[in-house]
Amino acid sequence: MLLDLLIEVGNLKRLPRTGWLLRGVSNPESIADHSFRTALITLFLADELRTRGVDISVERAVKIALIHDLAEARITDVPLTAQRYLDKGKAEKRAAMETFLKTPDPKEYFRLWREYEEGLSLEGRLVKFADRLEMLIQAYEYEKAGFRDLGEFWGTVEKLRESEFYAYFGELVERLVALRKDLR
Amino acid sequence: MLLDLLIEVGNLKRLPRTGWLLRGVSNPESIADHSFRTALITLFLADELRTRGVDISVERAVKIALIHDLAEARITDVPLTAQRYLDKGKAEKRAAMETFLKTPDPKEYFRLWREYEEGLSLEGRLVKFADRLEMLIQAYEYEKAGFRDLGEFWGTVEKLRESEFYAYFGELVERLVALRKDLR
Amino acid sequence: MLLDLLIEVGNLKRLPRTGWLLRGVSNPESIADHSFRTALITLFLADELRTRGVDISVERAVKIALIHDLAEARITDVPLTAQRYLDKGKAEKRAAMETFLKTPDPKEYFRLWREYEEGLSLEGRLVKFADRLEMLIQAYEYEKAGFRDLGEFWGTVEKLRESEFYAYFGELVERLVALRKDLR
Amino acid sequence: MLLDLLIEVGNLKRLPRTGWLLRGVSNPESIADHSFRTALITLFLADELRTRGVDISVERAVKIALIHDLAEARITDVPLTAQRYLDKGKAEKRAAMETFLKTPDPKEYFRLWREYEEGLSLEGRLVKFADRLEMLIQAYEYEKAGFRDLGEFWGTVEKLRESEFYAYFGELVERLVALRKDLR
Amino acid sequence: MLLDLLIEVGNLKRLPRTGWLLRGVSNPESIADHSFRTALITLFLADELRTRGVDISVERAVKIALIHDLAEARITDVPLTAQRYLDKGKAEKRAAMETFLKTPDPKEYFRLWREYEEGLSLEGRLVKFADRLEMLIQAYEYEKAGFRDLGEFWGTVEKLRESEFYAYFGELVERLVALRKDLR
Amino acid sequence: MLLDLLIEVGNLKRLPRTGWLLRGVSNPESIADHSFRTALITLFLADELRTRGVDISVERAVKIALIHDLAEARITDVPLTAQRYLDKGKAEKRAAMETFLKTPDPKEYFRLWREYEEGLSLEGRLVKFADRLEMLIQAYEYEKAGFRDLGEFWGTVEKLRESEFYAYFGELVERLVALRKDLR
Repeated sequence: MLLDLLIEVGNLKRLPRTGWLLRGVSNPESIADHSFRTALITLFLADELRTRGVDISVERAVKIALIHDLAEARITDVPLTAQRYLDKGKAEKRAAMETFLKTPDPKEYFRLWREYEEGLSLEGRLVKFADRLEMLIQAYEYEKAGFRDLGEFWGTVEKLRESEFYAYFGELVERLVALRKDLR
Repeated sequence: MLLDLLIEVGNLKRLPRTGWLLRGVSNPESIADHSFRTALITLFLADELRTRGVDISVERAVKIALIHDLAEARITDVPLTAQRYLDKGKAEKRAAMETFLKTPDPKEYFRLWREYEEGLSLEGRLVKFADRLEMLIQAYEYEKAGFRDLGEFWGTVEKLRESEFYAYFGELVERLVALRKDLR
Repeated sequence: MLLDLLIEVGNLKRLPRTGWLLRGVSNPESIADHSFRTALITLFLADELRTRGVDISVERAVKIALIHDLAEARITDVPLTAQRYLDKGKAEKRAAMETFLKTPDPKEYFRLWREYEEGLSLEGRLVKFADRLEMLIQAYEYEKAGFRDLGEFWGTVEKLRESEFYAYFGELVERLVALRKDLR
Repeated sequence: MLLDLLIEVGNLKRLPRTGWLLRGVSNPESIADHSFRTALITLFLADELRTRGVDISVERAVKIALIHDLAEARITDVPLTAQRYLDKGKAEKRAAMETFLKTPDPKEYFRLWREYEEGLSLEGRLVKFADRLEMLIQAYEYEKAGFRDLGEFWGTVEKLRESEFYAYFGELVERLVALRKDLR
Repeated sequence: MLLDLLIEVGNLKRLPRTGWLLRGVSNPESIADHSFRTALITLFLADELRTRGVDISVERAVKIALIHDLAEARITDVPLTAQRYLDKGKAEKRAAMETFLKTPDPKEYFRLWREYEEGLSLEGRLVKFADRLEMLIQAYEYEKAGFRDLGEFWGTVEKLRESEFYAYFGELVERLVALRKDLR
Repeated sequence: MLLDLLIEVGNLKRLPRTGWLLRGVSNPESIADHSFRTALITLFLADELRTRGVDISVERAVKIALIHDLAEARITDVPLTAQRYLDKGKAEKRAAMETFLKTPDPKEYFRLWREYEEGLSLEGRLVKFADRLEMLIQAYEYEKAGFRDLGEFWGTVEKLRESEFYAYFGELVERLVALRKDLR
């Protein structure tokens, strides 16, 4: 039933993002914290794309953003070091599928989730872009606050630069990179 | 510029929800944690309403949910005890307006925000319903974990019962109330 | 009744100083932490002033220091970003007044509070000086520990330099500034 | 020099009160948190006593309250379990003495400290009363929040009942005891 | 090289035990915290068994206890809810094997690890017993402190009762169960 | 009885290492965290020594490592600043003795403890070496994460260099020192 799902989703508030934890950020953001800003970024970028004439469904994009990490309520935030040993992709797929059984429209939600996971639609790929951008903004904020073992994360900038959305949001990405440089 | 807004929104991850803090929950959820689940609840309820034939815009509803607490990045989560002395409504209105200046479409976002704040649309009122429901689910989770100075919050159940959405989600609300009773 | 006030004051232990929180200090000091050292600084400075022949009431000064942030038990630590939108001064005034109703001598305590807030007496102004000095010492300590988004706070040094107490404690202030420089 | 002392005192903000920690309160108050409310209680009680015609120096009382735990910046909050093995009294005496060397008037501050530690004056004994009352109010607050391994602390109520100040503040003490009973 | 391993093992201090986290214990113990007491329990029980004439290698037992969770420095503490989707056993095996490559004697350490994981030796099975006992003592401590969503964990008592070591340590187990009952 | 000891030892999970706390590391490791890695280091180094032909008992070494800080469950982690005033050595000796009364073999455990404390055996001195090495690795990790008031700790490198074990593990020590230099 839906209430069970809403309660289960509470796990995302309690679970830390392990990437930061492992690098010494002592009380890092929760998965829900990350999902929230990812959804917000998705909303703003999708709106902007539509304004610029791109044929994109803001509704689909934001829906995908809100559910893209839902499976982590069961799987937790498995860090990169663990993914060499665990088939996270497969696990998330099954966990997502089962999680969505409690939603009003399981098939539709699973379809949305796959659009993100497999990059099947423009909306799904936009959420991936937003997901990475969110992580980098957070990395920047932690570095600004004084944490400094986060250099590794910035490799992701290349992924943003190769993205189809860089044509639209390249300036934003580069401005973030510049802000980071100014920290030195 | 949009990046400044996205960075500013990071405050919502760092700021605790003060209602819990004042009652002795030592590391309570962040405002972003709350906003995330509120948006998710809004999404599921809006979807359900549409399925049941209600004429509602899921896109508008979710947008409103994502931005309804944005002004708190500047105002912080002013608790009830403070609202006797501070005109939170007026402050949020101005802060929201200024915050939205950095979005792609300030007027539209401010309109959405007002729909929530003033209950001007079905979507806005649904977010209010979701916002309250989210708080109660969190209260339930804290009580389940052992915290117990949270009785006051449950007065909000009445607000849910009086809502136009109770006709659709009354069972969900009452099931939560029943789960809470079972904690004793 | 007095006990209610003493319990209410417990909020000051639970509430973080939001200025640090917003800049990424994850478990910052409480308002009570700050008030404690402010009172101690006030005590030492007032004693010193008396020794140097200044006509000052140590008792009044310390009393003012102990109560100067009491209204925040209701208002919370409203950060600068919020004060553009909220009339903190007015709110604190009313909250202070109502809070002091539970003390043995409401009028006297409110008078003391106004001496601080409005700078009406030497003692009130000394507490303001101590309040600022305390914040800077804390900023120094956080920077020493590794946090680094705190540059903004040091603008307050100018306020200390312009103060009538700088003639007496200028060396102390400048020594703090020098210690901070040595961190680089 | 005084600045060194003020920086050293910052330790009291960082050090937890170990009694709570050992009983599972995960982010307990700091020593400074405790000292702050103890000083405030002392202020209110001393004022009240003076109003009722008792010959007491409010200034002395509050001074004592502010410095009574200063030695813990060096010693830390040594819990009861440790005091069977460590001569805390002797250690605090020497640490206090050395700490006060950095104050404007070492002899006077040490005299004040001894008034508390050895109960040599009415003011010193009042601070002891306030110190215990503060701890009980905090125990009550933690129990109200849901923590429950704190029964041991309430033995201290007897010490308050035997105190010379019980004649004045017995009602306040018993009201606290009654509030606690109502938690069940 | 060994230093890399020692640094990697630092992850176990930073990673929370997720079982507690998911049930609302806000700052739960680390994996290292758990491993430490497990090793200590193993030491005491092995010593006791030897005293009672059992042919057991204390050295082997303690070694196994110290390394039994080492793979979690890479895998993190994958909770039960995740193990439906992730093959934790297989992942830990490979992660353990690779981790031990940095030790002085990879084959030997992997052999020890398998004794635990597959219950191949008396020593390995004793560590499993200690591992479970440790978890229950921690559950008891959290419940004593006020947390209360931990009932599920106590199913593990049955596993202890069925163990070959229950003949020796049954009294200890039942005393723990009795202490827990006294909390009500 | 043994269970009481196992519960008491839980204090080591709750008690922070005060050295870090006093330098602004806000949620530092627990004593148990430190003991765990110390025991692990001891295990690896002892194994290595044996491989290289040194006549050492791995069992004794690891036992000593596991119990060397047990007395701190009663004494807490008394920091250096306090040891000028408190006779920590004497206190720990008595607390250790009493603690071990609850173990299967009090005399033996106390003998092991003295081997560490007084450096009476090769195994005892190895644990001291491991204890210091562990602290330095942790200091390195905190500095890597961004904390920077930890320079003082590195004086301990000299103690490692003067140790009889430096002949065997000098490379490891110097590599750690080099890693630290690379942080700049």
